[in-house]
Amino acid sequence: MVYLTRRTTFSAAHRLWSNHLNEAENYAVYDKCANPNGHGHNYVLEVTVRGAPDPRTGMVMNLTDMKKITNERVIDWVDHKHLNYDVSWLEGVIPTAEMLAIAFWERLEPGFQGLLYEVKLHETENNMAAYRGERQSLEGE
Amino acid sequence: MVYLTRRTTFSAAHRLWSNHLNEAENYAVYDKCANPNGHGHNYVLEVTVRGAPDPRTGMVMNLTDMKKITNERVIDWVDHKHLNYDVSWLEGVIPTAEMLAIAFWERLEPGFQGLLYEVKLHETENNMAAYRGERQSLEGE
Amino acid sequence: MVYLTRRTTFSAAHRLWSNHLNEAENYAVYDKCANPNGHGHNYVLEVTVRGAPDPRTGMVMNLTDMKKITNERVIDWVDHKHLNYDVSWLEGVIPTAEMLAIAFWERLEPGFQGLLYEVKLHETENNMAAYRGERQSLEGE
Amino acid sequence: MVYLTRRTTFSAAHRLWSNHLNEAENYAVYDKCANPNGHGHNYVLEVTVRGAPDPRTGMVMNLTDMKKITNERVIDWVDHKHLNYDVSWLEGVIPTAEMLAIAFWERLEPGFQGLLYEVKLHETENNMAAYRGERQSLEGE
Amino acid sequence: MVYLTRRTTFSAAHRLWSNHLNEAENYAVYDKCANPNGHGHNYVLEVTVRGAPDPRTGMVMNLTDMKKITNERVIDWVDHKHLNYDVSWLEGVIPTAEMLAIAFWERLEPGFQGLLYEVKLHETENNMAAYRGERQSLEGE
Amino acid sequence: MVYLTRRTTFSAAHRLWSNHLNEAENYAVYDKCANPNGHGHNYVLEVTVRGAPDPRTGMVMNLTDMKKITNERVIDWVDHKHLNYDVSWLEGVIPTAEMLAIAFWERLEPGFQGLLYEVKLHETENNMAAYRGERQSLEGE
Repeated sequence: MVYLTRRTTFSAAHRLWSNHLNEAENYAVYDKCANPNGHGHNYVLEVTVRGAPDPRTGMVMNLTDMKKITNERVIDWVDHKHLNYDVSWLEGVIPTAEMLAIAFWERLEPGFQGLLYEVKLHETENNMAAYRGERQSLEGE
Repeated sequence: MVYLTRRTTFSAAHRLWSNHLNEAENYAVYDKCANPNGHGHNYVLEVTVRGAPDPRTGMVMNLTDMKKITNERVIDWVDHKHLNYDVSWLEGVIPTAEMLAIAFWERLEPGFQGLLYEVKLHETENNMAAYRGERQSLEGE
Repeated sequence: MVYLTRRTTFSAAHRLWSNHLNEAENYAVYDKCANPNGHGHNYVLEVTVRGAPDPRTGMVMNLTDMKKITNERVIDWVDHKHLNYDVSWLEGVIPTAEMLAIAFWERLEPGFQGLLYEVKLHETENNMAAYRGERQSLEGE
Repeated sequence: MVYLTRRTTFSAAHRLWSNHLNEAENYAVYDKCANPNGHGHNYVLEVTVRGAPDPRTGMVMNLTDMKKITNERVIDWVDHKHLNYDVSWLEGVIPTAEMLAIAFWERLEPGFQGLLYEVKLHETENNMAAYRGERQSLEGE
Repeated sequence: MVYLTRRTTFSAAHRLWSNHLNEAENYAVYDKCANPNGHGHNYVLEVTVRGAPDPRTGMVMNLTDMKKITNERVIDWVDHKHLNYDVSWLEGVIPTAEMLAIAFWERLEPGFQGLLYEVKLHETENNMAAYRGERQSLEGE
Repeated sequence: MVYLTRRTTFSAAHRLWSNHLNEAENYAVYDKCANPNGHGHNYVLEVTVRGAPDPRTGMVMNLTDMKKITNERVIDWVDHKHLNYDVSWLEGVIPTAEMLAIAFWERLEPGFQGLLYEVKLHETENNMAAYRGERQSLEGE
């Protein structure tokens, strides 16, 4: 079992705001992240697969395929976009690093044939969230 | 003469769009950076002063003062903001890294009593603009 | 279950020296790290919590709270300090990265209401220790 | 139980090519990595041990010993070398990051007296493989 | 006058060897860099242009054009190649960071219409060469 | 003319305190950097030489020589030391980044035969001083 990680970057805007909270609560929880016109980040996405290398190729998975799947399922949708308005499959998702990591996992998992181990999302050089599929859905039943 | 640099980060959204260009030209020039809802970056700002250290303190300038001036004149205005809509002194400025570096210089220069040497602005880990005051105004009269 | 990490830096001096060893042994074990006047590092502390995001906020924990707790319980005590002399709760602790990671965990754990998952401490760009609470006390019973 | 990591870098050339594949397959799988004269990387190797710190020294393991073992068993063999031709114990190993991580584990493990926890190998700033000994041999018997 | 920099990475093998030196001299000068089968690096290339931003676009130069020119004139030739054997325009050039920086400048300069200011080449995280066209040819007349 | 840079790191303690100031002034100027027992940093030193590459070797200067000179004249004296007490040639120097950059230049310059161009000293990831010999002595009156 080897863990293979590929790192990609993308740039996006977002605004933290919850429909479950009133305006005062939103500003109390999200502070400057609730700025109406949004702000943005250079996100760093690390996708990790886990498996045994194929003895014929020495690869757990071809990095070219990891790139293709990650781009088609996530990066092409979010890069140079506003995460609150431009991404259909993020509708209703509060775009914290935590929720984005879960949402990206759910987009990526079906493409990786059981090999996906972890999705890590760096929002800044100081904040990061990671998800390993240990919870199934976004809206905690 | 010693060069002293202080690095700060801020997160902001922007959209590249020029009123001097029509829509087709805007998309041709700015491509995905012209996305109507904007996108964003973790900007890294490096401010450099140049001078002789004061023999009584060993400092060209107190880093605490550099921080205070940089925050009051730039960071507090742009951090967690949308650069096209939220910053009065950026009105009419196309927010490329180049134009932001010039605009930040013009904001910072009066605060640094002749010591300001360079303003560097990293937009991503791959793109950076630097300005040393070698041109006086934004609109090249 | 999402893992949320916040990175902080602090600068401190330390000297590696053990009261369980004689002088020759100390220099044999710690070499230049035993320099009597000490040396120092820009430490990087990564604190990770693990939990389910609150569906009302999209957060495992508010990063503002993580910052406040980390600062109050660790950073404010160790930043710009000599770890051998200036920190009451490090008395008797040999300030290796390993022991500091454990000591920081013990300081932080009561503040995080069961969410603390890992404390990582980078001493230099090449050395790092991590602790997940898998051992209860500093002085191996 | 504390995890202690030491980071080392080395520079090496390699070519990805499999004797289990014909020429067309090799180029399909490895693309530009199959360039006959090879290419190269600044590899970053992170070796992690896990254990309880010795209460007399505060160390899981002396970093000096970690350095010596890592250099003697891996770095001195691979640094400034061509991994396909110059390293006897890599003969027959397709030098992907995955296979190198396994091969390095197998070289390092006997030197670390049961403490070795993980070998991570960064091939570029975007690609990384990690191995924790969860599989015994290279050829999956 | 604004300085605009774009960073690109590429991976290549090289061997340091001079036809002006005999074998003993080559090993004395280049030591392990003279390994016959070569070694390699993840090079980081920083290309800087200098000019006044166009007031219609806010750009010194479109980063898309900088990317295209840099790729066509340098990166596509050297990425995943052996610099001693695979690049026609490096024939006879000893591939030190210094000589590569000069050679890359000479390749890039005609494409940048007088705007090229500097070519920086990082060979490792510790070694870097920069050239600003202050000398015309490779073979010092 | 090519600029060749070599990066080295060292770890040291220091205390900012000036004999030209009284106690209240010292704390006003240096704040927490005046902590009596000192604090410390992982310093990053970048030494840059400038010259024409020797056509026989392709080198401005052999990096091995740059390393040897830098270690013998600076690093071996300051690494794992307290800069206020352990370094004879820093006696009387207030160890700010600015003064250290000047002091290191003066130590290094005689070893580099006219090639030394710049000494850069990073104190933290956010603070940096650079000196190019544009002022002759520390007290230059």
